[in-house]
Amino acid sequence: MPRLVMKFGGTSVANMDRIRNVARHVKREVDAGFEVAVVVSAMSGKTNELIAFVEDASKLHDKGEYDAVVASGEQITSGLLAIALQEMSIPARSWQGWQIPIETSDAHGAARIESIRGDKIIAGFTAGQVAVVAGFQGIHSSTGRLTTLGRGGSDTSAVAIAAAIGADRCDIYTDVDGVYTTDPRIVPQARRLDRVAFEEMLEMASLGAKVLQVRSVEVAMVHKVKTFVRSSLDDPDDPKPGTLICDEEDILEQQVVTGIAFSKDEAQITLRRVADKPGVAALIFGPLADANINVDMIIQVVSNDQKTTDLTFTVVTADFERAKAILEKHKDGIAYETLQGATDVVKISAIGIGMRSHAGIAARAFKALADKGINIRAITTSEIKFSVLIDKDYTELAVRTLHSLYGLDKA
Amino acid sequence: MPRLVMKFGGTSVANMDRIRNVARHVKREVDAGFEVAVVVSAMSGKTNELIAFVEDASKLHDKGEYDAVVASGEQITSGLLAIALQEMSIPARSWQGWQIPIETSDAHGAARIESIRGDKIIAGFTAGQVAVVAGFQGIHSSTGRLTTLGRGGSDTSAVAIAAAIGADRCDIYTDVDGVYTTDPRIVPQARRLDRVAFEEMLEMASLGAKVLQVRSVEVAMVHKVKTFVRSSLDDPDDPKPGTLICDEEDILEQQVVTGIAFSKDEAQITLRRVADKPGVAALIFGPLADANINVDMIIQVVSNDQKTTDLTFTVVTADFERAKAILEKHKDGIAYETLQGATDVVKISAIGIGMRSHAGIAARAFKALADKGINIRAITTSEIKFSVLIDKDYTELAVRTLHSLYGLDKA
Repeated sequence: MPRLVMKFGGTSVANMDRIRNVARHVKREVDAGFEVAVVVSAMSGKTNELIAFVEDASKLHDKGEYDAVVASGEQITSGLLAIALQEMSIPARSWQGWQIPIETSDAHGAARIESIRGDKIIAGFTAGQVAVVAGFQGIHSSTGRLTTLGRGGSDTSAVAIAAAIGADRCDIYTDVDGVYTTDPRIVPQARRLDRVAFEEMLEMASLGAKVLQVRSVEVAMVHKVKTFVRSSLDDPDDPKPGTLICDEEDILEQQVVTGIAFSKDEAQITLRRVADKPGVAALIFGPLADANINVDMIIQVVSNDQKTTDLTFTVVTADFERAKAILEKHKDGIAYETLQGATDVVKISAIGIGMRSHAGIAARAFKALADKGINIRAITTSEIKFSVLIDKDYTELAVRTLHSLYGLDKA
Repeated sequence: MPRLVMKFGGTSVANMDRIRNVARHVKREVDAGFEVAVVVSAMSGKTNELIAFVEDASKLHDKGEYDAVVASGEQITSGLLAIALQEMSIPARSWQGWQIPIETSDAHGAARIESIRGDKIIAGFTAGQVAVVAGFQGIHSSTGRLTTLGRGGSDTSAVAIAAAIGADRCDIYTDVDGVYTTDPRIVPQARRLDRVAFEEMLEMASLGAKVLQVRSVEVAMVHKVKTFVRSSLDDPDDPKPGTLICDEEDILEQQVVTGIAFSKDEAQITLRRVADKPGVAALIFGPLADANINVDMIIQVVSNDQKTTDLTFTVVTADFERAKAILEKHKDGIAYETLQGATDVVKISAIGIGMRSHAGIAARAFKALADKGINIRAITTSEIKFSVLIDKDYTELAVRTLHSLYGLDKA
């Protein structure tokens, strides 16, 4: 029999009525002849409630205990959905991460899945049973402790389980009906994509599109899991297909640019008049890396005097204060004159596998943005995307400008 | 080092302030040199919230999924208390039932503990770590599924863990400061007992005193766990000792009657003019036993005609309608004339190991109750207790009468 993994997020399981609606989606696929594993998140609001408890207990809480507390949210939903399915005469049982087991690294709060055994779930299929899996959670096998996969981790649970049980498809149900060319709240002309390549989706997720956890796209890409993003708000008896994430070979009409993403979660740091000597980059970025701070969009400009350089880079907003403190502590070692920071910035990105074979794509953007009076603070490019850092106030204008420029507006 | 198990119920961990208060109680014992395992219930209200979810999902829910859902309440508290302890610089970690493991029967919703491994908790002690154990839950080893121990099950978790790790003492913290001669809300003269024998406590718990789960007392008695009932509302720096539950040999001044218990959770069923033939009791009680209905206080009176008998017994209120329905279904087989039922009854019991060596204890009660105009519907006696079934309206009067009669009023 064909196998299917279905994943439902927090708003899709927010209360019992919505959980019963999820059960109807599952019933449709069971009736269609699929062996089904359903992956569920915590009821919306639950995880935040649990995190608030933990933060009340201690600002500097033990991440292992954090995981023990927050993993309970998914446990609750898995049991409730199993009961709702049984109530529709569909045999079902809940599975916690440690029961399967879903083995992860010991990076509590942001663990990586290392292996998943599919045999127990498959044995359940053979017995005619739907598997309801608590997403987001796993177990670190050598300590036997509960772990969680970080925000959006249930997406990764779903795709990894699909790979482990050899599913024919993985459907990620969300509160939108697919992947869009950009956020429709900003650009009403945004179009739903029928298909998007794994590489594009990976860049979109990394660059700010919140539809899927980045790690889930990586896993889908590596294991070639045919993944759909679709809507849990659809009528369970008449669902729409959503967006298929697939190999680029499976996309017939490739666009040069597929989507425009943006991230407001950026902060800019500039070090002025850094001594331009070998090894200076290591002096700057070494301590940041040691503190687990990821650096993005690095730009180095040699000054007029040829002896010093200005160095600009971005970090996520949450790391901004920490990064500044570290750099100030190392000021003498690095030997810079001043440190400037800004959080009123946004990173706008255009993504498309077509960029590989088309030159001058980014240059057109620079001109279009300049024509609108938008100043570019930093630029980075890679094979299938480019990003510009601009003032946050220009976010919507810049996104709309690029969306039109690359012909993404719907007719 | 001496070892201690401390157990805190739902009201004692109702919010983070109360959990921090629990941590202070734990700190006191750690500072006093104890290796400590703390057993916690769900935050008060949590279990009811989870049960409401399950009942909304299905009236006839799968008990295995019920357990998966409700066990999450204790998981949350265990993580939060571990963090609160760490915040006070006390090394601590949470333990779920399946991590220890606490192995139980597969009777989901009312599982019995079958074995507990103490080695991991003891290894934690050696590393200077307080064990924070999620009470109420266990694992059925052959299926690997979560189980729960029924209402009040955390008491049993605590005592069983104390037995498994060879604890010197098990302290059950509640919202009262010990075991009383009877409910002080009914009899203001009720006295806190310094000591009570295991056998007496077992009868008290079985007969309506809600201070401990019956099963926890059985486990304490079998494994000779020195158990205190004490108050979590005490100042953590100046706690009172509470009531010690111990072997009767350890009680110097034995009372004839130690306590008066009462249970309003009783219903009376009388079958009139049952054919007085061999095997009739089996015809009546067999079907009830098959339906897992426990029968108590059976009284049989031969009628004047010597051919029929009247048979009266009690069941818990929750089983009343079901018991009546079963008996009506079997009316022809049993051959009785009429079935009468009453739920406006209460069972009043007097408990004391001194009854073994003193005759006529119950007879004094019958007279005292008659003097107050209280009609006795049924009587049962055993070695260390007797119970009378009376009209519910007379509950307080009867409890006060017996409490005074046996000299339990405080001076």
